[in-house]
Amino acid sequence: MTLPSTLLENAVDQLATLPGIGRRTATRLALDLLRREPEAVRRFAMAIHELREKVRYCDECCTISDSPICGICSAPMRDRSLICVVEDIRDVVAFENTRQYNGLYHVLGGVISPMDGIGPEDLNMAKLLERAGNGEVKEVILALSATLEGDTTCFYLNKRLKERGAIVSVIARGISVGGELEHVDELTLGRSIMDRKPYGAGSSGT
Amino acid sequence: MTLPSTLLENAVDQLATLPGIGRRTATRLALDLLRREPEAVRRFAMAIHELREKVRYCDECCTISDSPICGICSAPMRDRSLICVVEDIRDVVAFENTRQYNGLYHVLGGVISPMDGIGPEDLNMAKLLERAGNGEVKEVILALSATLEGDTTCFYLNKRLKERGAIVSVIARGISVGGELEHVDELTLGRSIMDRKPYGAGSSGT
Repeated sequence: MTLPSTLLENAVDQLATLPGIGRRTATRLALDLLRREPEAVRRFAMAIHELREKVRYCDECCTISDSPICGICSAPMRDRSLICVVEDIRDVVAFENTRQYNGLYHVLGGVISPMDGIGPEDLNMAKLLERAGNGEVKEVILALSATLEGDTTCFYLNKRLKERGAIVSVIARGISVGGELEHVDELTLGRSIMDRKPYGAGSSGT
Repeated sequence: MTLPSTLLENAVDQLATLPGIGRRTATRLALDLLRREPEAVRRFAMAIHELREKVRYCDECCTISDSPICGICSAPMRDRSLICVVEDIRDVVAFENTRQYNGLYHVLGGVISPMDGIGPEDLNMAKLLERAGNGEVKEVILALSATLEGDTTCFYLNKRLKERGAIVSVIARGISVGGELEHVDELTLGRSIMDRKPYGAGSSGT
């Protein structure tokens, strides 16, 4: 598809670099932007420009934040003896939306993936190990993706965190709440029967 | 979903204004942009900013163009007696990709849609009527969407163009090339049998 203007071509090329957006969708997005008021497009471009330019991360948990210490790390009611380790900011938002967790977080910024050239030193691990050894933290909860890379990262973190005397746990894996058994994949179903709990114990049996 | 930073919130809000992009996808796009080099994001924002700021339209056919007269209108080999009327720039690109058409175009910028408050005066119609009456144009081909609004626009344009002595035609509607009959909707199938052609006549029978 050749476009009749290099300006449009340029904008489409850039929009098509976004994940899940092909050139056809990118063209549609660019033409939509073209139909807007110049002021609206200026605000759009500025919001993206400023996002990358002015972004700050929490000095403690490495989540995105407007202040040096994020709202979660500075909240007085939070349980500072618990750290939940997640891959990225979206996971923090997801856990916060459950309203079930009152501890702190630590954003790794990814998982160990030798195929993509991502090793432990590319992630926010040094800070996590430092926090785990500060005497205040009792338990570190690993909440990473249930993929090969996620499991590798859990394995590595468990070893390093145990050295610092922290209790390490992982989030429960099993069938989804409201999920019908016939739609659950074999691995998950197998895992769910291996990891069974006494009926009525804890939150899942009530 | 509450995000931990107003910068991120702002970028997500803006990305979510794009057609077909919800807040969840917008968050994914914003986090992807965050992971890039500042220079890459600057180029991204700049391409979108410049698109709207510096955009020009062809003085003749109203398509997007880098020069006052677009590449198609200024091409010496083009048949200047034919004008194909389309809704937007994407349609020009789509027809150009077929390599079947050698005339000129006219981009309306939409179709008449009273529900959305779009009347003839909101579209690039005055210029089309002026072109149709310039003595050079013999036929105007209406290539608008086969919707109620598209049909209304065709009806209106046909009346106004006929007054100027132009021959008005519409693109053929029927079953898609390669389409199986059982998957064709009833309206299209009905139309295709009403508009049947002698076998071997023109391009479709060969």
